[in-house]
Amino acid sequence: MGRTVEPRLLRGLRDILPEQMHARQWIIDTIRGVYENYGYVPLSTPAIEYLDVLSGSAGEETQKELFEVVGPAQEKLGLRFDQTVPLARVVAQYRDLPRPFRRYQVSPVWRMEMRPNEKRGRFREFTQFDIDAVGVKSDIADVEMITAMCDTMAALKTGPFRVRVSSRRVLNLLLPYAGIDPDRAHDVFRVLDKLEKLGAEKIRLELTTGYKDESGAPIRGLGFSDAQVDRIDEFLAIQGDRRDDVLAQVREQFRDVEGAEVELDALEAMSQTLHTLGYGDDQVVFDPRLARGLAYYTGSVFECVLEDLPTFGAIGGGGRYDDLVLRFSGEKVPAVGTSFGVDRLLIALFELGRVPVRKSTAQVLVSVFDRKMMDDYVAMTYELRRAGVRTELYLGNPRRVGKQIEYGDKYEVPIVVIYASDEKAKGIVQIKDMAIGRERTAEIADRDAWKAERPGQFEVPRDQLIPAVQKLLREIEGEV
Amino acid sequence: MGRTVEPRLLRGLRDILPEQMHARQWIIDTIRGVYENYGYVPLSTPAIEYLDVLSGSAGEETQKELFEVVGPAQEKLGLRFDQTVPLARVVAQYRDLPRPFRRYQVSPVWRMEMRPNEKRGRFREFTQFDIDAVGVKSDIADVEMITAMCDTMAALKTGPFRVRVSSRRVLNLLLPYAGIDPDRAHDVFRVLDKLEKLGAEKIRLELTTGYKDESGAPIRGLGFSDAQVDRIDEFLAIQGDRRDDVLAQVREQFRDVEGAEVELDALEAMSQTLHTLGYGDDQVVFDPRLARGLAYYTGSVFECVLEDLPTFGAIGGGGRYDDLVLRFSGEKVPAVGTSFGVDRLLIALFELGRVPVRKSTAQVLVSVFDRKMMDDYVAMTYELRRAGVRTELYLGNPRRVGKQIEYGDKYEVPIVVIYASDEKAKGIVQIKDMAIGRERTAEIADRDAWKAERPGQFEVPRDQLIPAVQKLLREIEGEV
Repeated sequence: MGRTVEPRLLRGLRDILPEQMHARQWIIDTIRGVYENYGYVPLSTPAIEYLDVLSGSAGEETQKELFEVVGPAQEKLGLRFDQTVPLARVVAQYRDLPRPFRRYQVSPVWRMEMRPNEKRGRFREFTQFDIDAVGVKSDIADVEMITAMCDTMAALKTGPFRVRVSSRRVLNLLLPYAGIDPDRAHDVFRVLDKLEKLGAEKIRLELTTGYKDESGAPIRGLGFSDAQVDRIDEFLAIQGDRRDDVLAQVREQFRDVEGAEVELDALEAMSQTLHTLGYGDDQVVFDPRLARGLAYYTGSVFECVLEDLPTFGAIGGGGRYDDLVLRFSGEKVPAVGTSFGVDRLLIALFELGRVPVRKSTAQVLVSVFDRKMMDDYVAMTYELRRAGVRTELYLGNPRRVGKQIEYGDKYEVPIVVIYASDEKAKGIVQIKDMAIGRERTAEIADRDAWKAERPGQFEVPRDQLIPAVQKLLREIEGEV
Repeated sequence: MGRTVEPRLLRGLRDILPEQMHARQWIIDTIRGVYENYGYVPLSTPAIEYLDVLSGSAGEETQKELFEVVGPAQEKLGLRFDQTVPLARVVAQYRDLPRPFRRYQVSPVWRMEMRPNEKRGRFREFTQFDIDAVGVKSDIADVEMITAMCDTMAALKTGPFRVRVSSRRVLNLLLPYAGIDPDRAHDVFRVLDKLEKLGAEKIRLELTTGYKDESGAPIRGLGFSDAQVDRIDEFLAIQGDRRDDVLAQVREQFRDVEGAEVELDALEAMSQTLHTLGYGDDQVVFDPRLARGLAYYTGSVFECVLEDLPTFGAIGGGGRYDDLVLRFSGEKVPAVGTSFGVDRLLIALFELGRVPVRKSTAQVLVSVFDRKMMDDYVAMTYELRRAGVRTELYLGNPRRVGKQIEYGDKYEVPIVVIYASDEKAKGIVQIKDMAIGRERTAEIADRDAWKAERPGQFEVPRDQLIPAVQKLLREIEGEV
């Protein structure tokens, strides 16, 4: 075979082992439940898109993070970095899709993140779970995105959370207010988006003269005057726990800015609908500072944070992007969407201890005490499976009993079935409740000592195996 | 915005639109149900692996089909072409995983297929759903793979199918029988694997002198003698509907070949276990010609075909690969696995009309007749959702009633709720069963004509909306 290849992964990529996968599957199923309750339909697009479809859609930052791929005839391709750009392509490509087109999609995306950080959930490959409503101008669609985020968080039992809401159109008012050319909107918002990460001081420097970061690399300043930045700072200082209160402050500040009233009235109406539906200030807050990095947003923007992990950053977010389909079809199609970071949610909920932890899929492990009785073990295994009990037959090396019990213990299989020639002669089978006396079992190495004690173990007639296991499972699962 | 970008995909890549996605999700959920019933645990690995991990594991053919990716520091990377090689890497990398390690994984894989063919389900990106048992020598594990395939096909209600089974170790006996050097085993099997695709004549030519294919490209011959190929042909001629019968023919042919008896006894024992468990000759057949292309197989090989689509090719398959982990760890770890092609299954079952077809997720569409009553529509929508009814609020342009009914019709939403100022004044709401009089509705353009007929429509008090919808849904879904 020659020399071996070192088993390893590129930084920022990771394997998700079974214990985390069980939780992850539960997260995905739960989100799917909420999105389907809202009537969204599923869509799948390939990971690989033409490079010109991906590039230029979402701003420079994303452009730099593209993983490029070469096609069989040297076609320039890339891996999708989000699910929104491929959706815009789909809407432009299939003209007979119903409108509104309201779809959900869950799949991995790839970004060549320069500083991946597993603990903070910053990966180079991560799974997003999105809903988007395309062909929808009504603000009710934006409200629906926000309530879907709230309902998902409630269904996941994440503990306290906040959906922070703002609007690019309100943020745009800041430009005339501070005397900044509207053409520079994206530059300004890109910097403001880093407020939480970098702090107010560095933001001010980046808006004015620039500075050197920790590595000594120069960060170019945008060259705004102190007076301009003072006005931005006034705006950034707005905050409050009640949506009405925040809106009043923004109204006061922008009272002389043309066009402010209509935008703020729209936000107020959204807030009112949210209140009527029961989404109060404890769930949804207005945060006028919220920018969200992606260049394609044109209206409302929102993100969701866990109150108990204040420094972890958003675990989901989205906004309105009325111009994205235009790139592909020349047709202006209003759209709004939101996305959960499944892998970020997984990391966060594990850290908070708020996911159901399950190591094994199997509810029963049929152990093998005597290789000559393999036909009996196989028969039991399939009987249990056909009764709907998730069952594993131990197929490792069966020499040592202790090793099989250890294996069941490591995977936390709730029940082990034990059957040797003694049991066969007596027409019985042993059922072992693994939770009882789990500590004891680990200490018992050989079969004789183990047989003497048998913690949590009882016998039933062989033909009562199925009902006895089902009864015990009901008891065990009732306890959880 | 400048010029538009043409919305398009590379050949062999495809979008899966909602109607197919509903069926695909059902396929995945069904397979997952069977695999979990067998007690397999979920695993996820990233799409991107180091190139040296992927290359050289599965033979030349696969090597040529790798999509390469370049990392942030010019690392040589590639997209996985299967889920088995990444699994072998995982087993070598995480030494404290329990053994046996029995995992399932469902994710896309990528192969730079030179002749993609959508109709035959040959894609460049496709999703596989695998189970593998690693650290398992027992043939019972191989039996389990075969029964899991059968149980999956039964759960999917695919109609008649066959799992064809053979063994590389039996195929290996063909080499001494035909006087061929064992070092050339892989060359021979690679050619035999193409038997069904190319026919007996071309196989003979490729084993001997070579030939030119349709494009005129020379296919190199392996240079075996006619006498050698006659012996191979004798072997290839073996067939039969009963496993016992096929085994007897192989026994007869290899009666003088050293080591044949022990291999054939093993196959016979597997067959016996399958019979005992109820997997008869109608589900599992022996086909000694079956080779399966991948270079890493070392023992049993199997694949599953749909009897009603005889030319479609296998929709799943697998085998034993005892040497794959060795590449990464230097440790020999016996393993066996099987894989369904989810996208191939989807295409095949759609062609056979054997998938549940559903266009909408929503069970109810709340239509919008009067923009001033939006608060009422929003309230109804959330009431229905909170009662567990999958509900969509129509958020397209509400000007024309007919357009909304058309929309509900296109998506085949079973129920539309109708509520205008008349209804509000009377304290009622209209419920429309869309299946009744679907044809009539399409012909009715304006509201007055529509109001006169109202096919399949009835009214209930507003406060009876939820129970009335739930009752109608039970009736509709009972009909299916």
